[in-house]
Amino acid sequence: MPSETFYSGKKILITGGLGFIGSTLAIRLSELGARVTLLDGLIPELGANYYNIEPIKGRVDVVEADLGNRSVTDLLVKEKDLVFNIGMHSCHLKSMTDPLFDLETNVTPQIHFLESLRAHNPQTRVIYIGTRAQFGQALTIPITEETPPNPKDIYAASKQVVEWYHLLYQKICGLRVTSLRLGNTYGPRHQMRHPQYGVQNFLIRLALEDQELKVFGDGSQKREMIYIDDIIACLLLLGENPLCVDQIYCVGSAESITFLQLVEAIIRACGSGRYTHVPWPEDRKTIEVGDVVTDFSKLTGHTGWKPTTLLDEGLNRTVEFYRKYRPHYW
Amino acid sequence: MPSETFYSGKKILITGGLGFIGSTLAIRLSELGARVTLLDGLIPELGANYYNIEPIKGRVDVVEADLGNRSVTDLLVKEKDLVFNIGMHSCHLKSMTDPLFDLETNVTPQIHFLESLRAHNPQTRVIYIGTRAQFGQALTIPITEETPPNPKDIYAASKQVVEWYHLLYQKICGLRVTSLRLGNTYGPRHQMRHPQYGVQNFLIRLALEDQELKVFGDGSQKREMIYIDDIIACLLLLGENPLCVDQIYCVGSAESITFLQLVEAIIRACGSGRYTHVPWPEDRKTIEVGDVVTDFSKLTGHTGWKPTTLLDEGLNRTVEFYRKYRPHYW
Repeated sequence: MPSETFYSGKKILITGGLGFIGSTLAIRLSELGARVTLLDGLIPELGANYYNIEPIKGRVDVVEADLGNRSVTDLLVKEKDLVFNIGMHSCHLKSMTDPLFDLETNVTPQIHFLESLRAHNPQTRVIYIGTRAQFGQALTIPITEETPPNPKDIYAASKQVVEWYHLLYQKICGLRVTSLRLGNTYGPRHQMRHPQYGVQNFLIRLALEDQELKVFGDGSQKREMIYIDDIIACLLLLGENPLCVDQIYCVGSAESITFLQLVEAIIRACGSGRYTHVPWPEDRKTIEVGDVVTDFSKLTGHTGWKPTTLLDEGLNRTVEFYRKYRPHYW
Repeated sequence: MPSETFYSGKKILITGGLGFIGSTLAIRLSELGARVTLLDGLIPELGANYYNIEPIKGRVDVVEADLGNRSVTDLLVKEKDLVFNIGMHSCHLKSMTDPLFDLETNVTPQIHFLESLRAHNPQTRVIYIGTRAQFGQALTIPITEETPPNPKDIYAASKQVVEWYHLLYQKICGLRVTSLRLGNTYGPRHQMRHPQYGVQNFLIRLALEDQELKVFGDGSQKREMIYIDDIIACLLLLGENPLCVDQIYCVGSAESITFLQLVEAIIRACGSGRYTHVPWPEDRKTIEVGDVVTDFSKLTGHTGWKPTTLLDEGLNRTVEFYRKYRPHYW
């Protein structure tokens, strides 16, 4: 477990601070006594939602600006003890239909942001959020940190290079970076307006609305669903542990399930919805990565982290949240 | 050997067409009867030099524009049978001191160029020039196409992602891509004004000027020096072979030598100059990749290509060229 005192009084910047992970992290850090600043570009279609930070309204600073806006970031990065760099889009399909959007959202602003750090806080601690997708159709099973990158879409390729950029800034200016290769994460505060970022979350909306959930093919591909609170605990552990500097980590879930089992669990948790099998759409088939099975023993070894939230429990909490706050999400 | 007829009448676009490799390729393609268009951004400090295309002056079209200028590239890519995408900077050190230059020269324009291809010639044949540096400090020796990328500087990381972008456009629009991971290449038409791009070439200038060549450390790191004519033959083979679509290839040299042996051979070819051992400068030590030993049997298997120019022969030809045309190069 993260120590209760490490974050007290720490000055922390979170990029993508109004999104799913950024806002949940901000709430937890505020509880721990940190002084939190949120930067968010409020990019249309992405996850920014002011309601996400309702519990800490007025207790965190929120700056609306693009990650690549150096006039803003040059100020914001100063004197920060830690940066959680989470601001990104995560849409595989859109990266293939609009690679320029991917470049301009996930690559170019990141170099500008790193240049801000080099100029104004060159040796600060940065936790970067990478993605399991960097492994693509994994060249080894289970996936470990040694598995070579094998991106199957523009989004994944870009995330890989931006992870490298971050780690190389250690050589450039002494930046102290950790990258967490995030897998499928679910829970409260994810955007629910469309299925483009995090289809697993959108399925919950469909089930709550008693609609039909589509299972591509037989749904037998293995998936790992990680509950948001487990990810937040992980990020806090990474941020306080000097052993994690200059490292990348994979992360996994408490249970290995198939996509079909996930759909069944969602319908169970909602008490509504149903599913049907449909053929793989061409655009999804081309970027599908097959089974996801991750060995996260390095992360456990370095930090003690283990996922503790079982799928049914996490889904129940998620469904409860969206039942209560639905008007704020769709 | 490349067939004598394949390129006759073919419409070919070469990016970086006034540089070292682009111009030499243009000369050879013109000899083979191709209709060649050169695009070059004339970026200061890079290798563009109008004297490079003196032998084919008036016989090729030259367009001065940035690779990222879509108003130009949208026109240029139309109806081309082949594109050799060579326009790039290749300075490891500069990529670390100025990552934005790297982004804006080697990454952003490439996505714009790929978008031009998607819009106006989506299934054309593209030969992209990658770099051996993508392997960084190689995780396997010898290096093969299966060796995972391990970039040690921003330049190498960017080259890796742009190679992925190219290959992913096969899925996006059917682009037919080959990437050649180029190692140290030397010969006539390389820029000789400064050592920033291709130190092996600059050493020839130093020796010709009877100056002192610096050998970092004991100079025992293994290197592969590939003569430009061998690379041109390779590019022509890749361009005409359908087997090479959607593939990457490593390339190597006829002889494995140490850096010290290279320096000695240069001094021998020039009949002037001398060397001294100096300690590794910090900025170079941090991006040094150790021994380079490449297994290029995949390339030989698919195309029949083998390097035929021995180092002493290649150096003699290079020295002869620069003795003759030196005023055009420094």
